[in-house]
Amino acid sequence: MTDPNPPDKLLFTPGPLTTSLSVKQAMLHDAGSWHADFNGTVSSIRAKILAIAELSRADGWEVIPLQGSGTYGVESVFASCVPPEGKVCVLANGAYGERMAAILEHLKIRYTVLRSPENETPDLTLLDQTLSEDLAITHVAAVHCETTTGILNPINEIGQIVRRHGCLFVVDAMSSFGGIPINIEAAGIDFLISSPNKCLESVPGFCFVLGRRYTFLAHEKHARSLSLNLADQLRGFDKNGQFRYTPPTHTLLAFEQALQELDREGGVAARSGRYQKNHAVLLAGMKDLGFKTYLPPAVQSYIITAFHYPDDPQFKFIDFYQRLSESGFIIYPGKISRADTFRIGTIGHLFEPDLRALLTAIRHAIEVAAMHPVDDPHPALPDPAPTIAKI
Amino acid sequence: MTDPNPPDKLLFTPGPLTTSLSVKQAMLHDAGSWHADFNGTVSSIRAKILAIAELSRADGWEVIPLQGSGTYGVESVFASCVPPEGKVCVLANGAYGERMAAILEHLKIRYTVLRSPENETPDLTLLDQTLSEDLAITHVAAVHCETTTGILNPINEIGQIVRRHGCLFVVDAMSSFGGIPINIEAAGIDFLISSPNKCLESVPGFCFVLGRRYTFLAHEKHARSLSLNLADQLRGFDKNGQFRYTPPTHTLLAFEQALQELDREGGVAARSGRYQKNHAVLLAGMKDLGFKTYLPPAVQSYIITAFHYPDDPQFKFIDFYQRLSESGFIIYPGKISRADTFRIGTIGHLFEPDLRALLTAIRHAIEVAAMHPVDDPHPALPDPAPTIAKI
Repeated sequence: MTDPNPPDKLLFTPGPLTTSLSVKQAMLHDAGSWHADFNGTVSSIRAKILAIAELSRADGWEVIPLQGSGTYGVESVFASCVPPEGKVCVLANGAYGERMAAILEHLKIRYTVLRSPENETPDLTLLDQTLSEDLAITHVAAVHCETTTGILNPINEIGQIVRRHGCLFVVDAMSSFGGIPINIEAAGIDFLISSPNKCLESVPGFCFVLGRRYTFLAHEKHARSLSLNLADQLRGFDKNGQFRYTPPTHTLLAFEQALQELDREGGVAARSGRYQKNHAVLLAGMKDLGFKTYLPPAVQSYIITAFHYPDDPQFKFIDFYQRLSESGFIIYPGKISRADTFRIGTIGHLFEPDLRALLTAIRHAIEVAAMHPVDDPHPALPDPAPTIAKI
Repeated sequence: MTDPNPPDKLLFTPGPLTTSLSVKQAMLHDAGSWHADFNGTVSSIRAKILAIAELSRADGWEVIPLQGSGTYGVESVFASCVPPEGKVCVLANGAYGERMAAILEHLKIRYTVLRSPENETPDLTLLDQTLSEDLAITHVAAVHCETTTGILNPINEIGQIVRRHGCLFVVDAMSSFGGIPINIEAAGIDFLISSPNKCLESVPGFCFVLGRRYTFLAHEKHARSLSLNLADQLRGFDKNGQFRYTPPTHTLLAFEQALQELDREGGVAARSGRYQKNHAVLLAGMKDLGFKTYLPPAVQSYIITAFHYPDDPQFKFIDFYQRLSESGFIIYPGKISRADTFRIGTIGHLFEPDLRALLTAIRHAIEVAAMHPVDDPHPALPDPAPTIAKI
């Protein structure tokens, strides 16, 4: 076996993130993608996601795993479940909301975007008014935890407005599902998209969409993509329990293991508790070090937190990032247009001692910087905004 | 570490297939998807694929890895690189040709399908005539090795005709690239789609598309999908070496290892030699056991072979499959509409002794069947045709 030393750097990112060794070890097997054993894995994963969501097939709910990243899942909902005459109202206060608009632009689906500042939740009065005035709108789409900033959008309140106007509600819960309890039915959510490689602490390779059977099938004749056709994917599972096209078999084996580990931890409640603790430790420690959060506490999630650069004009993020990386910690650059920030995620297979170790490394990195400003060239910084939508 | 015993069943399938343990072990690491180290992996993989294809960036060639299965890659070419007024001529003699037509139907791109029987290569005279008569056709699409039967389509001859008519040539080389030498420029191929989990012997999770830079960018304003937008994906790599959206990081680490192992084996020529040997051993052994191939030798690839059921009216494929599975060998059900066949793949991390062991198990399974017809119910058989296109 390969020596797993030196240990991987810990990923304080919104995913792909740090997973347990046992989740990764589940990938040490080649599974036949049509074999009964693997079909059993797929079936158990689908049942388990529904259980985590506290949804029942008896009430018409289904989960459709789909090959590709989370963005593919969001696109699959629009491509498969919005009729030709449909119109989507997107609530955007960050890059992932903007990305929804970019998807709709590509799919030539009518849409309107209600933007709010990156540090504010959507204007619910404006939403209500828009849905009253523009009767062409059939769907409203929002991001639950917008990892651009870490802001937590009020999906329950949004859902009530959407429902009152008879629209369908699409929620990108990529970085929250499994880590923040969501009552999908109470929130009036019709489609929820998430991914195994966020709070479910597995590896990336596919996404999944929760929704009701009839909403998946209602517009199947108008699907704008074969690969992303959710109705066809669902019918494939109906028929023989198999993915229509080659699934990422190893990734699915890892996810089966990750779901067992979620169970052993105590489910979403326990995981949510651990993430809240991680976040509290981070916030207290960063405050001690003089860092200020970008968001007001009322809208800050415990998933990922954006911090302002320190006031010190000597502070160079690239050096800071590099020093932390050398100490074994990967943080995230900022993605906010109007402020100089960096981000630290508190999800994944990370525990309080990991956060304390990160804080020690951050203190050290700042102290070193204060004493010895770095002039050396460093490897290129990760791009802070690789995903800013184009429209 | 997890005990990898009992060993995985060997997969005599066209992929996902059996990979080396060292390829799987490369997935025991969590990589930061924006970190410089991981960008280096992506960059090295892209360079290596071009080298395997014997193509040069200096001549305008690029390779674009894309999240999702191989079908996503085929769809990405049509969705990104066919202009609104374009029309595609699909050559179909199996399920994967039909799938191309299904993709075009979903994308609302004009197309025509030239079908030939599943045991015959395309009618080149008809192709020539069609391209002469229908001047609206801008692209011709074909499958290199159609794994429905294992037939090898003559892409070089097709390419000459396509080029003479000034069309672009799209080749699905999913199950052949890396195992069958392809001279992309000589064959007049403009877009070639393949996958890491076939002859390159890695794990599934993404695909890649080879093509010239200007053909990827020519129609970017008309891309019909954001997730599958190849121009945007290419510009993402241009910008910072990163995937636009979460890549399957572990799968990419495995692929980096698999490409090193291809090098160590001696490249495509050596791998092709091993697969040909595997195939020769299989064919000789199956002939000794009285099995007949579905295809005439002239068009049979060494990737996967379809065999007729034996004449014995007692033969039940489900029992045969189950006995082989219990012996540790997974074969593939048939996918041919007009004949009762099963299929055996000869690609993947399989060597002559593995083929000989399979042949022994097959002989035993037949002998047991002759002596003790099985009446027990067995687990459901893999569906033989989960991917037959709907149109």
